[in-house]
This record gives sequence, C-alpha cells and structure tokens, in this order.
Amino acid sequence: MKLYGYYRSSTSYRLRIALELKGLAFENVPVNLLKTEQKDAAFTSRNPFGSVPLLQADERDRAQSMAQLEWLEEAYPEPPLLPDDLEDRYTVRELTYAIATELHAPLNLPVLKWLKDEYRKSQDEIGVWYRHWLKRTLDPVEARLAQLGTGNFLMGAPGLFEVVLLPQVYNAQRFDYDFSASPHISAIEKACLALPAFQRAHPDSQVDAPND
Amino acid sequence: MKLYGYYRSSTSYRLRIALELKGLAFENVPVNLLKTEQKDAAFTSRNPFGSVPLLQADERDRAQSMAQLEWLEEAYPEPPLLPDDLEDRYTVRELTYAIATELHAPLNLPVLKWLKDEYRKSQDEIGVWYRHWLKRTLDPVEARLAQLGTGNFLMGAPGLFEVVLLPQVYNAQRFDYDFSASPHISAIEKACLALPAFQRAHPDSQVDAPND
Repeated sequence: MKLYGYYRSSTSYRLRIALELKGLAFENVPVNLLKTEQKDAAFTSRNPFGSVPLLQADERDRAQSMAQLEWLEEAYPEPPLLPDDLEDRYTVRELTYAIATELHAPLNLPVLKWLKDEYRKSQDEIGVWYRHWLKRTLDPVEARLAQLGTGNFLMGAPGLFEVVLLPQVYNAQRFDYDFSASPHISAIEKACLALPAFQRAHPDSQVDAPND
Repeated sequence: MKLYGYYRSSTSYRLRIALELKGLAFENVPVNLLKTEQKDAAFTSRNPFGSVPLLQADERDRAQSMAQLEWLEEAYPEPPLLPDDLEDRYTVRELTYAIATELHAPLNLPVLKWLKDEYRKSQDEIGVWYRHWLKRTLDPVEARLAQLGTGNFLMGAPGLFEVVLLPQVYNAQRFDYDFSASPHISAIEKACLALPAFQRAHPDSQVDAPND
C-alpha cells in the first residue's frame, strides 16, 4: 500500500494510525499541502477531490478518509477497529462521526485559508473560530465519555474513535485549545501516545516533518 | 421508533429517507431549530450534541446521522443501503462521506449563523460562501459519477449515497446552486424524487413545513 499524505494533515494522521494498528505495511509518500501539490493535475487525475490522504491499495486509488477507514476495517478485519456488538459499534461511530462530520471541515486548511484570504481575518480571529467549533463538539464528546466512564480507551483497546480523536487533539493543541475540562479525552490521548503504533503515526515522526 | 427532527434539516431528511427505504415505521417529532428547541435542557439531556436528528430506537437515544445510518444498516439489513461487494461498498462510502464530512458542517445552520452574527456577512455573501464549498465537493462527486457512468442510481437502487445526496441537493437549490454542469447528480435526483419513499421523506411533506 502507498499512503499519499502530509505529516500534519489530520486525515492523513488518521490513516497512519489505522494502518499501524492493523499492522499493515505501507509506503508513506509526502504531498506538500503548503505547495498545493494535491491540486496538481498528476494528483487530481488519481483523486478528483484533490485532497490527502490518498490510499493506493488493492489496485485502486482511494480518497476520503472515513471511507478508507471503513473499507480497511472490512478488508482487513484483524485486529478490529470496531467492536462486534451492534450497540458498541454504534457508540464508537457516534463519537467518531461527531468529530469527522462536525469538526473536520470548518477546521481544515481550505476553510481557514478562506477566512484569512477572503474575510481578512487575523491569526487571533482564526484561533477564536477554531476553538469555538472545537468546544462545541468536544464538550459533548467529553460528556458522553464521562457517562460511559471510559478509562484509557473507549472500548478496551484503541479503535476507530481513537484513530479520529488523536489527530484532532494534536491539531487543537496547535491552536492552544484548553483541555482542562476534558479529562476523559486527555486520558485517552495519554494512553494512545504511549503505544508504538501511535508514536510511529505521529506527525513528528514523519519524513516530511520539519527537523526543528 | 421516534425521529426528532426538523423538516428542512438535511441530516433529518437523510434519516427520513433511510427509514422509508427500509420500510420502518417511525413517529416524526418536530424540533424547531429556529426556536433553538434542540438546545433546551430536556433535549440536550438526551442528546448532548444538542442537534437533530435524534433517533429513539431499540431503547436508546441515538445522535449523529452517519452513525445512525450505519447502525440502521447493521440492525435492519433489508433492504440494504450498502451493496455486498467490498469494492462497491467503498465506492458508495467515498461519495457519501465526501458530502457528509466536507459539506455538512460549513453549510450547516450554526456556521451560517456565525457568518451572519459574528462576521456580519450579508445574505448575498453567505450565498457566495455556500456555493463555493458546494462546488468544491459536488464537482469531484460529479466527476466520479461520470467515470462510473451512473444512470438513475449509483448502485442500481437507491442507497446510502442517495440518502445523503438528496438533502444536499435540496439545500443547494435553496441557495440557487447551478446544477447545469452536474448532469449525473441531476439524473439521480430526478430518479429518487419519482419514488414514494423519497416523496414521503421530502421536507415539503412534513407536518412542521410551512403551508404556503
């Protein structure tokens, strides 16, 4: 498999974690979003969405991280990212898709670039935007985790939720999000970062990460 | 089952279509988003996300439309919203999740309200924002459909993609989106609207829709 991604892209980070958790070998091919390489014709001919990650797997170019993840789980079921039990699967997907559908787009580079270039917002104003939407979704996620009484992981072992949560937490920290009211999220983050799979998938471990 | 929703909410509309396609009986309970009833304590105690749709099913309150839909498919597999074949399932999810993850949040009421109240954007300026993000995702969706040579439906019968596409098209039309370069999307829309399940699920058919 080849994963075309960017070290700091949260959706690329999702895929790296999932591939590592499943023990699947993959080649990481950097695509520099700051140079908009994802919009080059050579790339968009393979992925019309012009986005990373692009997963080349089983003779097919696959776009859209959540579709990639659900496919990975079906094509390579062991070890599982989703539990067997229907109700547990629902629980995992509810929290996972809250982050993927409510948070991803408004906090993603194209929207932030629009705020800067079209609306002439300052970095401080963009920070206000960023933290507003984060809080709006992370607070109820934290509330659900508290209801469930989670410890290190949502379901005993890291899975789809942790795959999507950790990149969001990483990005939130870049925008100085205050996690003091999110102890369950922080406990899961800490437990994940102690695992080699998450360490290998981390943005800082990637070849295209800056050295400083 | 009870579906707490709003006639014009695209995610509520998704659930109505899916429940109709599966032939599941449900009671529709209107929640007035313009009166922010979804933020009332009685509602958020059941759904901490303070959002519609809320699906009360199998003795549980379920939030997040994509998690609801994936659960419905697993709990009530017939008739299916996803094909059996792994590659076809991937194809459906790629296009479905493009809309659900890239388009939903930036075009949803809370973000539009922020543009109006915090950024003081006019309705015309909000229309520019709306159509910009729509085009950015609907163009590659249309390109994929053209590559696949779809006719009435993505996979022979309406499924998860149509469940998510139709509400987005409905909302796009409210913002005067130009579909002239999207013949495959328009063909699918037309085929769906000819079906009783989609007609019953349509915003105009709901008890909380205005009469005019």
